Amino acid sequence: MPVRVLGFDGDDTLWHSETRFHITQQEFRDLIGRYVPGTDVDARLAQTESANLSMYGYGVKSFTLSMLETAIELTEGRIPTRDLDVILGWGKRMLMQPTELLDAVEDTLRQLSESYDLLVITKGDLFDQESKLARSGVVHFFGGVEIVSEKNVDTYRGVFKRRAIDPEEFVMVGNSLRSDILPVIEAGARAVHIPYEVTWAHEHVADEELPKDGWVRLAGIKELPGALEAFG
Amino acid sequence: MPVRVLGFDGDDTLWHSETRFHITQQEFRDLIGRYVPGTDVDARLAQTESANLSMYGYGVKSFTLSMLETAIELTEGRIPTRDLDVILGWGKRMLMQPTELLDAVEDTLRQLSESYDLLVITKGDLFDQESKLARSGVVHFFGGVEIVSEKNVDTYRGVFKRRAIDPEEFVMVGNSLRSDILPVIEAGARAVHIPYEVTWAHEHVADEELPKDGWVRLAGIKELPGALEAFG
Repeated sequence: MPVRVLGFDGDDTLWHSETRFHITQQEFRDLIGRYVPGTDVDARLAQTESANLSMYGYGVKSFTLSMLETAIELTEGRIPTRDLDVILGWGKRMLMQPTELLDAVEDTLRQLSESYDLLVITKGDLFDQESKLARSGVVHFFGGVEIVSEKNVDTYRGVFKRRAIDPEEFVMVGNSLRSDILPVIEAGARAVHIPYEVTWAHEHVADEELPKDGWVRLAGIKELPGALEAFG
Repeated sequence: MPVRVLGFDGDDTLWHSETRFHITQQEFRDLIGRYVPGTDVDARLAQTESANLSMYGYGVKSFTLSMLETAIELTEGRIPTRDLDVILGWGKRMLMQPTELLDAVEDTLRQLSESYDLLVITKGDLFDQESKLARSGVVHFFGGVEIVSEKNVDTYRGVFKRRAIDPEEFVMVGNSLRSDILPVIEAGARAVHIPYEVTWAHEHVADEELPKDGWVRLAGIKELPGALEAFG
Protein backbone atom coordinates (compact mmCIF):
# COMPACT_ATOMS: atom_id res chain seq x y z
CA MET A 1 0.00 0.00 0.00
CA PRO A 2 1.43 3.44 -0.85
CA VAL A 3 2.49 5.67 2.03
CA ARG A 4 -0.22 8.23 2.87
CA VAL A 5 0.49 9.42 6.41
CA LEU A 6 3.83 10.33 8.03
CA GLY A 7 4.24 10.56 11.80
CA PHE A 8 7.11 12.68 13.14
CA ASP A 9 8.64 12.53 16.56
CA GLY A 10 9.38 16.02 17.95
CA ASP A 11 12.34 16.04 20.37
CA ASP A 12 15.64 15.41 18.56
CA THR A 13 13.85 14.59 15.31
CA LEU A 14 12.33 17.96 14.39
CA TRP A 15 14.03 20.13 17.03
CA HIS A 16 17.00 19.89 19.40
CA SER A 17 16.08 18.70 22.88
CA GLU A 18 18.62 16.29 24.35
CA THR A 19 21.36 18.91 24.00
CA ARG A 20 19.52 21.21 26.43
CA PHE A 21 19.37 18.38 28.97
CA HIS A 22 23.00 17.55 28.21
CA ILE A 23 24.24 21.08 28.83
CA THR A 24 22.27 21.44 32.06
CA GLN A 25 23.47 18.06 33.27
CA GLN A 26 27.06 19.18 32.70
CA GLU A 27 26.42 22.24 34.89
CA PHE A 28 24.73 20.06 37.49
CA ARG A 29 27.73 17.71 37.56
CA ASP A 30 30.09 20.69 38.09
CA LEU A 31 27.91 22.19 40.82
CA ILE A 32 27.42 18.99 42.84
CA GLY A 33 31.00 17.83 42.24
CA ARG A 34 32.20 20.77 44.34
CA TYR A 35 30.46 19.29 47.40
CA VAL A 36 31.12 15.60 46.80
CA PRO A 37 34.29 15.28 44.67
CA GLY A 38 34.80 11.91 43.02
CA THR A 39 31.11 10.95 43.11
CA ASP A 40 29.47 9.74 39.89
CA VAL A 41 26.83 12.47 39.81
CA ASP A 42 25.46 11.38 36.41
CA ALA A 43 24.83 7.83 37.60
CA ARG A 44 23.03 9.03 40.73
CA LEU A 45 20.90 11.47 38.76
CA ALA A 46 20.00 8.70 36.29
CA GLN A 47 19.00 6.46 39.24
CA THR A 48 16.79 9.16 40.71
CA GLU A 49 15.18 9.90 37.32
CA SER A 50 14.52 6.23 36.78
CA ALA A 51 13.00 5.77 40.25
CA ASN A 52 10.77 8.81 39.71
CA LEU A 53 9.66 7.96 36.17
CA SER A 54 6.46 6.18 37.24
CA MET A 55 5.47 9.22 39.32
CA TYR A 56 6.78 12.14 37.28
CA GLY A 57 6.83 10.95 33.67
CA TYR A 58 9.13 12.64 31.13
CA GLY A 59 10.05 16.25 30.62
CA VAL A 60 11.87 19.28 31.97
CA LYS A 61 9.80 19.67 35.16
CA SER A 62 10.43 16.03 36.07
CA PHE A 63 14.14 16.48 35.31
CA THR A 64 14.30 19.59 37.51
CA LEU A 65 12.60 17.86 40.45
CA SER A 66 14.98 14.90 40.09
CA MET A 67 18.02 17.22 40.01
CA LEU A 68 16.86 18.89 43.24
CA GLU A 69 16.33 15.54 44.95
CA THR A 70 19.71 14.22 43.80
CA ALA A 71 21.44 17.41 44.93
CA ILE A 72 19.99 17.15 48.44
CA GLU A 73 20.66 13.42 48.73
CA LEU A 74 24.22 13.42 47.39
CA THR A 75 25.31 16.32 49.60
CA GLU A 76 23.33 14.93 52.55
CA GLY A 77 21.57 18.25 52.79
CA ARG A 78 24.80 20.30 52.83
CA ILE A 79 24.04 22.03 49.53
CA PRO A 80 23.05 25.64 50.28
CA THR A 81 19.59 26.83 49.38
CA ARG A 82 20.93 29.37 46.88
CA ASP A 83 22.33 26.50 44.78
CA LEU A 84 18.93 24.81 44.76
CA ASP A 85 17.55 28.10 43.53
CA VAL A 86 20.10 27.98 40.72
CA ILE A 87 18.81 24.52 39.74
CA LEU A 88 15.22 25.84 39.71
CA GLY A 89 16.47 28.55 37.35
CA TRP A 90 18.01 25.97 35.01
CA GLY A 91 14.62 24.33 34.67
CA LYS A 92 13.00 27.60 33.70
CA ARG A 93 15.79 28.40 31.26
CA MET A 94 15.26 25.02 29.54
CA LEU A 95 11.51 25.61 29.29
CA MET A 96 11.98 29.07 27.80
CA GLN A 97 14.65 28.18 25.29
CA PRO A 98 13.61 28.91 21.72
CA THR A 99 12.74 25.84 19.67
CA GLU A 100 15.78 25.19 17.49
CA LEU A 101 14.92 23.12 14.43
CA LEU A 102 17.34 20.48 13.18
CA ASP A 103 19.04 20.95 9.82
CA ALA A 104 16.80 20.93 6.72
CA VAL A 105 13.63 20.26 8.75
CA GLU A 106 11.61 23.19 7.43
CA ASP A 107 12.38 22.59 3.73
CA THR A 108 11.83 18.85 3.99
CA LEU A 109 8.48 19.24 5.78
CA ARG A 110 7.34 21.76 3.16
CA GLN A 111 8.22 19.32 0.39
CA LEU A 112 6.65 16.29 2.12
CA SER A 113 3.46 18.16 3.02
CA GLU A 114 2.66 18.35 -0.71
CA SER A 115 2.50 14.55 -1.04
CA TYR A 116 1.62 13.20 2.42
CA ASP A 117 -0.52 13.93 5.49
CA LEU A 118 1.85 14.86 8.31
CA LEU A 119 1.33 14.24 12.03
CA VAL A 120 3.45 15.06 15.07
CA ILE A 121 3.51 12.18 17.56
CA THR A 122 5.63 13.24 20.50
CA LYS A 123 6.20 12.11 24.05
CA GLY A 124 6.67 14.15 27.19
CA ASP A 125 5.18 17.00 29.10
CA LEU A 126 1.99 18.23 27.39
CA PHE A 127 2.50 21.89 28.19
CA ASP A 128 6.19 22.00 27.23
CA GLN A 129 5.62 20.08 23.99
CA GLU A 130 2.73 22.31 22.91
CA SER A 131 4.78 25.35 23.74
CA LYS A 132 7.78 24.11 21.73
CA LEU A 133 5.58 23.21 18.80
CA ALA A 134 3.86 26.60 18.85
CA ARG A 135 7.27 28.31 18.73
CA SER A 136 8.70 25.94 16.10
CA GLY A 137 7.42 27.78 13.04
CA VAL A 138 6.51 24.49 11.33
CA VAL A 139 3.20 23.65 13.01
CA HIS A 140 1.22 24.63 9.86
CA PHE A 141 2.69 21.70 7.93
CA PHE A 142 0.94 19.25 10.26
CA GLY A 143 -2.65 18.07 10.02
CA GLY A 144 -2.61 16.87 13.61
CA VAL A 145 -0.62 16.66 16.82
CA GLU A 146 -0.57 13.77 19.30
CA ILE A 147 1.24 14.36 22.58
CA VAL A 148 1.43 11.09 24.48
CA SER A 149 2.85 10.11 27.85
CA GLU A 150 4.48 6.94 26.53
CA LYS A 151 5.08 5.55 23.03
CA ASN A 152 4.24 1.88 22.98
CA VAL A 153 2.36 -0.35 20.55
CA ASP A 154 -1.00 0.50 22.15
CA THR A 155 -0.29 4.21 21.78
CA TYR A 156 0.26 3.82 18.04
CA ARG A 157 -2.77 1.54 17.63
CA GLY A 158 -4.82 4.20 19.40
CA VAL A 159 -3.60 6.89 17.00
CA PHE A 160 -4.37 4.69 13.97
CA LYS A 161 -7.88 4.01 15.25
CA ARG A 162 -8.65 7.60 16.23
CA ARG A 163 -7.45 8.93 12.90
CA ALA A 164 -8.70 6.10 10.67
CA ILE A 165 -5.16 5.25 9.49
CA ASP A 166 -4.36 1.86 7.99
CA PRO A 167 -0.98 0.85 9.52
CA GLU A 168 0.21 -0.21 6.06
CA GLU A 169 -0.08 3.37 4.77
CA PHE A 170 1.77 4.86 7.79
CA VAL A 171 5.47 5.61 8.27
CA MET A 172 6.88 6.88 11.58
CA VAL A 173 10.01 9.05 11.54
CA GLY A 174 12.06 9.45 14.69
CA ASN A 175 15.39 9.27 16.50
CA SER A 176 14.46 6.71 19.14
CA LEU A 177 14.57 3.00 18.34
CA ARG A 178 12.58 2.22 21.47
CA SER A 179 9.83 4.79 20.96
CA ASP A 180 9.64 5.48 17.23
CA ILE A 181 10.71 2.23 15.54
CA LEU A 182 10.08 -0.94 17.59
CA PRO A 183 6.42 -0.36 18.59
CA VAL A 184 5.56 1.00 15.14
CA ILE A 185 6.83 -2.14 13.39
CA GLU A 186 4.97 -4.24 15.96
CA ALA A 187 1.77 -2.35 15.10
CA GLY A 188 2.19 -3.31 11.44
CA ALA A 189 3.44 0.02 10.08
CA ARG A 190 6.84 1.10 8.78
CA ALA A 191 9.47 3.41 10.24
CA VAL A 192 12.49 5.56 9.46
CA HIS A 193 15.21 5.93 12.06
CA ILE A 194 17.21 9.17 12.02
CA PRO A 195 19.68 8.98 14.92
CA TYR A 196 20.43 12.13 16.89
CA GLU A 197 23.93 13.10 17.97
CA VAL A 198 23.20 12.22 21.63
CA THR A 199 21.16 9.23 22.83
CA TRP A 200 19.56 9.17 26.26
CA ALA A 201 20.66 6.05 28.17
CA HIS A 202 17.04 5.08 28.82
CA GLU A 203 16.41 4.81 25.05
CA HIS A 204 19.12 2.29 24.25
CA VAL A 205 18.12 -0.89 22.37
CA ALA A 206 20.27 -4.00 21.89
CA ASP A 207 20.93 -5.05 18.30
CA GLU A 208 19.18 -8.39 18.70
CA GLU A 209 15.95 -6.61 19.66
CA LEU A 210 15.84 -4.73 16.35
CA PRO A 211 13.22 -5.80 13.82
CA LYS A 212 14.56 -7.28 10.58
CA ASP A 213 12.21 -5.52 8.17
CA GLY A 214 9.96 -2.55 7.82
CA TRP A 215 12.44 0.16 8.71
CA VAL A 216 15.48 1.99 7.38
CA ARG A 217 18.08 4.25 8.95
CA LEU A 218 18.95 7.62 7.44
CA ALA A 219 21.71 10.11 8.28
CA GLY A 220 19.39 13.11 8.13
CA ILE A 221 15.86 14.24 7.38
CA LYS A 222 17.00 15.55 4.00
CA GLU A 223 17.15 11.94 2.72
CA LEU A 224 13.56 11.25 3.75
CA PRO A 225 11.68 12.12 0.53
CA GLY A 226 13.90 9.75 -1.50
CA ALA A 227 13.61 6.97 1.08
CA LEU A 228 9.82 7.23 1.11
CA GLU A 229 9.67 6.84 -2.66
CA ALA A 230 11.65 3.61 -2.26
CA PHE A 231 9.07 2.45 0.33
CA GLY A 232 6.48 2.61 -2.48
CA MET B 1 -31.01 18.34 18.60
CA PRO B 2 -31.00 15.50 21.18
CA VAL B 3 -27.92 15.13 23.36
CA ARG B 4 -25.59 12.42 22.02
CA VAL B 5 -22.16 13.08 23.57
CA LEU B 6 -21.28 14.06 27.15
CA GLY B 7 -17.89 15.54 28.03
CA PHE B 8 -16.73 15.21 31.64
CA ASP B 9 -14.08 17.24 33.37
CA GLY B 10 -11.85 15.07 35.61
CA ASP B 11 -10.42 17.02 38.57
CA ASP B 12 -13.13 17.89 41.09
CA THR B 13 -15.90 16.68 38.78
CA LEU B 14 -15.20 12.93 38.66
CA TRP B 15 -12.54 12.72 41.38
CA HIS B 16 -11.25 14.88 44.25
CA SER B 17 -8.25 17.00 43.32
CA GLU B 18 -8.38 20.47 44.82
CA THR B 19 -8.53 19.00 48.34
CA ARG B 20 -5.09 17.44 47.86
CA PHE B 21 -3.70 20.86 46.86
CA HIS B 22 -5.60 22.45 49.72
CA ILE B 23 -4.19 20.10 52.36
CA THR B 24 -0.63 20.46 51.07
CA GLN B 25 -0.98 24.24 50.92
CA GLN B 26 -2.04 24.24 54.57
CA GLU B 27 1.12 22.31 55.47
CA PHE B 28 3.18 24.68 53.36
CA ARG B 29 1.68 27.69 55.15
CA ASP B 30 2.53 26.17 58.54
CA LEU B 31 6.09 25.27 57.49
CA ILE B 32 6.97 28.65 55.96
CA GLY B 33 5.11 30.59 58.67
CA ARG B 34 7.68 29.36 61.18
CA TYR B 35 10.42 31.27 59.33
CA VAL B 36 8.47 34.38 58.37
CA PRO B 37 5.61 34.83 60.86
CA GLY B 38 2.86 37.19 59.79
CA THR B 39 3.58 36.82 56.06
CA ASP B 40 0.68 35.99 53.75
CA VAL B 41 2.21 32.76 52.43
CA ASP B 42 -0.87 31.85 50.36
CA ALA B 43 -0.81 35.14 48.51
CA ARG B 44 2.90 34.81 47.69
CA LEU B 45 2.48 31.23 46.51
CA ALA B 46 -0.45 32.28 44.31
CA GLN B 47 1.73 35.05 42.83
CA THR B 48 4.55 32.62 42.07
CA GLU B 49 2.15 30.09 40.54
CA SER B 50 0.60 32.76 38.39
CA ALA B 51 3.99 34.07 37.22
CA ASN B 52 5.10 30.52 36.37
CA LEU B 53 1.91 29.44 34.61
CA SER B 54 3.11 30.32 31.12
CA MET B 55 6.28 28.25 31.68
CA TYR B 56 5.04 25.37 33.83
CA GLY B 57 1.35 24.94 32.99
CA TYR B 58 -0.98 23.24 35.49
CA GLY B 59 -0.47 20.24 37.72
CA VAL B 60 1.28 18.83 40.75
CA LYS B 61 4.84 19.11 39.39
CA SER B 62 4.29 22.79 38.59
CA PHE B 63 2.79 23.33 42.04
CA THR B 64 5.77 21.63 43.71
CA LEU B 65 8.30 23.74 41.79
CA SER B 66 6.38 26.90 42.70
CA MET B 67 6.28 25.91 46.40
CA LEU B 68 10.06 25.41 46.38
CA GLU B 69 10.63 28.78 44.72
CA THR B 70 8.27 30.56 47.13
CA ALA B 71 9.91 28.86 50.13
CA ILE B 72 13.38 30.04 49.09
CA GLU B 73 12.22 33.55 48.22
CA LEU B 74 10.09 34.19 51.30
CA THR B 75 12.78 32.98 53.70
CA GLU B 76 15.50 34.72 51.68
CA GLY B 77 17.28 31.40 51.47
CA ARG B 78 17.14 30.75 55.23
CA ILE B 79 14.94 27.67 54.87
CA PRO B 80 17.06 24.59 55.54
CA THR B 81 17.55 22.04 52.79
CA ARG B 82 15.78 19.32 54.77
CA ASP B 83 12.57 21.37 54.61
CA LEU B 84 12.87 21.67 50.85
CA ASP B 85 13.20 17.91 50.79
CA VAL B 86 9.95 17.72 52.75
CA ILE B 87 8.26 19.84 50.05
CA LEU B 88 9.60 17.50 47.33
CA GLY B 89 8.03 14.65 49.32
CA TRP B 90 4.65 16.40 49.41
CA GLY B 91 4.68 16.55 45.61
CA LYS B 92 5.31 12.83 45.37
CA ARG B 93 2.65 12.07 47.93
CA MET B 94 0.11 14.06 45.90
CA LEU B 95 1.05 12.22 42.71
CA MET B 96 0.75 8.83 44.37
CA GLN B 97 -2.54 9.45 46.14
CA PRO B 98 -5.25 7.01 45.08
CA THR B 99 -7.91 8.50 42.82
CA GLU B 100 -10.88 9.17 45.07
CA LEU B 101 -14.12 9.42 43.10
CA LEU B 102 -16.77 11.95 44.09
CA ASP B 103 -20.09 10.71 45.45
CA ALA B 104 -22.31 8.74 43.06
CA VAL B 105 -19.87 9.10 40.13
CA GLU B 106 -19.58 5.41 39.33
CA ASP B 107 -23.32 4.65 39.38
CA THR B 108 -24.19 7.77 37.40
CA LEU B 109 -21.57 7.06 34.72
CA ARG B 110 -22.79 3.48 34.39
CA GLN B 111 -26.34 4.70 33.89
CA LEU B 112 -25.38 7.48 31.44
CA SER B 113 -23.10 5.22 29.39
CA GLU B 114 -26.20 3.27 28.33
CA SER B 115 -27.72 6.31 26.61
CA TYR B 116 -24.82 8.59 25.65
CA ASP B 117 -21.24 8.53 24.36
CA LEU B 118 -19.00 9.66 27.21
CA LEU B 119 -15.70 11.55 26.90
CA VAL B 120 -13.23 12.78 29.51
CA ILE B 121 -11.94 16.27 28.68
CA THR B 122 -9.49 17.26 31.36
CA LYS B 123 -6.79 19.86 31.82
CA GLY B 124 -3.41 19.54 33.44
CA ASP B 125 -0.33 17.41 33.45
CA LEU B 126 -0.63 14.61 30.86
CA PHE B 127 1.17 11.97 32.90
CA ASP B 128 -0.61 12.71 36.18
CA GLN B 129 -4.04 12.85 34.52
CA GLU B 130 -3.53 9.55 32.68
CA SER B 131 -2.29 7.97 35.86
CA LYS B 132 -5.31 9.20 37.86
CA LEU B 133 -7.70 8.04 35.16
CA ALA B 134 -6.09 4.61 34.98
CA ARG B 135 -6.50 4.22 38.75
CA SER B 136 -10.05 5.64 38.79
CA GLY B 137 -11.87 2.40 38.00
CA VAL B 138 -14.28 4.21 35.66
CA VAL B 139 -12.17 4.53 32.50
CA HIS B 140 -14.16 1.76 30.76
CA PHE B 141 -17.27 3.96 30.68
CA PHE B 142 -15.53 6.41 28.37
CA GLY B 143 -15.20 6.15 24.60
CA GLY B 144 -12.35 8.65 24.55
CA VAL B 145 -10.04 10.79 26.64
CA GLU B 146 -8.78 14.29 25.81
CA ILE B 147 -6.09 15.71 28.06
CA VAL B 148 -5.49 19.33 27.11
CA SER B 149 -3.14 22.01 28.39
CA GLU B 150 -5.82 24.71 28.45
CA LYS B 151 -9.61 24.65 28.04
CA ASN B 152 -10.66 27.51 25.80
CA VAL B 153 -13.12 27.79 22.92
CA ASP B 154 -10.49 26.61 20.39
CA THR B 155 -9.79 23.53 22.49
CA TYR B 156 -13.45 22.52 22.41
CA ARG B 157 -13.79 23.31 18.69
CA GLY B 158 -10.76 21.09 18.10
CA VAL B 159 -12.36 18.21 20.04
CA PHE B 160 -15.64 18.61 18.10
CA LYS B 161 -13.79 18.57 14.78
CA ARG B 162 -11.50 15.64 15.63
CA ARG B 163 -14.38 13.54 16.89
CA ALA B 164 -17.03 14.63 14.35
CA ILE B 165 -19.30 16.03 17.08
CA ASP B 166 -21.99 18.59 16.28
CA PRO B 167 -21.82 21.17 19.12
CA GLU B 168 -25.62 21.05 19.37
CA GLU B 169 -25.52 17.38 20.41
CA PHE B 170 -22.79 17.95 23.03
CA VAL B 171 -23.07 18.72 26.75
CA MET B 172 -20.01 19.44 28.92
CA VAL B 173 -20.15 18.61 32.63
CA GLY B 174 -17.69 20.22 35.02
CA ASN B 175 -16.98 22.20 38.17
CA SER B 176 -15.18 25.15 36.59
CA LEU B 177 -17.18 28.02 35.09
CA ARG B 178 -14.07 29.32 33.33
CA SER B 179 -12.98 26.02 31.82
CA ASP B 180 -16.07 23.85 31.51
CA ILE B 181 -18.97 26.26 30.98
CA LEU B 182 -18.00 29.60 29.35
CA PRO B 183 -15.94 28.32 26.39
CA VAL B 184 -18.40 25.47 25.74
CA ILE B 185 -21.35 27.85 25.45
CA GLU B 186 -19.25 30.08 23.20
CA ALA B 187 -18.55 27.07 20.95
CA GLY B 188 -22.31 26.52 20.53
CA ALA B 189 -22.73 23.54 22.86
CA ARG B 190 -24.45 23.20 26.24
CA ALA B 191 -23.05 22.71 29.72
CA VAL B 192 -23.84 21.55 33.24
CA HIS B 193 -22.05 23.18 36.16
CA ILE B 194 -21.55 21.06 39.27
CA PRO B 195 -19.63 23.21 41.77
CA TYR B 196 -17.00 21.58 43.94
CA GLU B 197 -16.60 22.34 47.62
CA VAL B 198 -13.39 24.35 47.02
CA THR B 199 -12.75 26.70 44.08
CA TRP B 200 -9.24 27.62 42.99
CA ALA B 201 -8.81 31.42 42.95
CA HIS B 202 -7.63 31.33 39.32
CA GLU B 203 -10.96 29.81 38.23
CA HIS B 204 -13.23 32.54 39.60
CA VAL B 205 -15.73 34.14 37.19
CA ALA B 206 -17.76 37.31 37.84
CA ASP B 207 -21.54 36.95 37.61
CA GLU B 208 -21.84 39.40 34.70
CA GLU B 209 -19.54 37.19 32.60
CA LEU B 210 -21.89 34.21 32.90
CA PRO B 211 -23.85 33.24 29.79
CA LYS B 212 -27.64 33.63 30.06
CA ASP B 213 -28.63 30.38 28.38
CA GLY B 214 -27.37 26.96 27.49
CA TRP B 215 -26.31 25.81 30.93
CA VAL B 216 -27.70 24.73 34.28
CA ARG B 217 -26.21 24.29 37.74
CA LEU B 218 -26.68 21.08 39.71
CA ALA B 219 -25.81 20.21 43.29
CA GLY B 220 -24.34 16.83 42.39
CA ILE B 221 -23.70 14.40 39.55
CA LYS B 222 -26.64 12.27 40.74
CA GLU B 223 -29.02 14.88 39.29
CA LEU B 224 -27.39 14.71 35.87
CA PRO B 225 -29.53 12.03 34.15
CA GLY B 226 -32.72 13.95 34.97
CA ALA B 227 -31.25 17.29 33.87
CA LEU B 228 -30.15 15.82 30.54
CA GLU B 229 -33.64 14.58 29.82
CA ALA B 230 -34.88 18.13 30.37
CA PHE B 231 -32.27 19.33 27.83
CA GLY B 232 -34.09 17.20 25.22
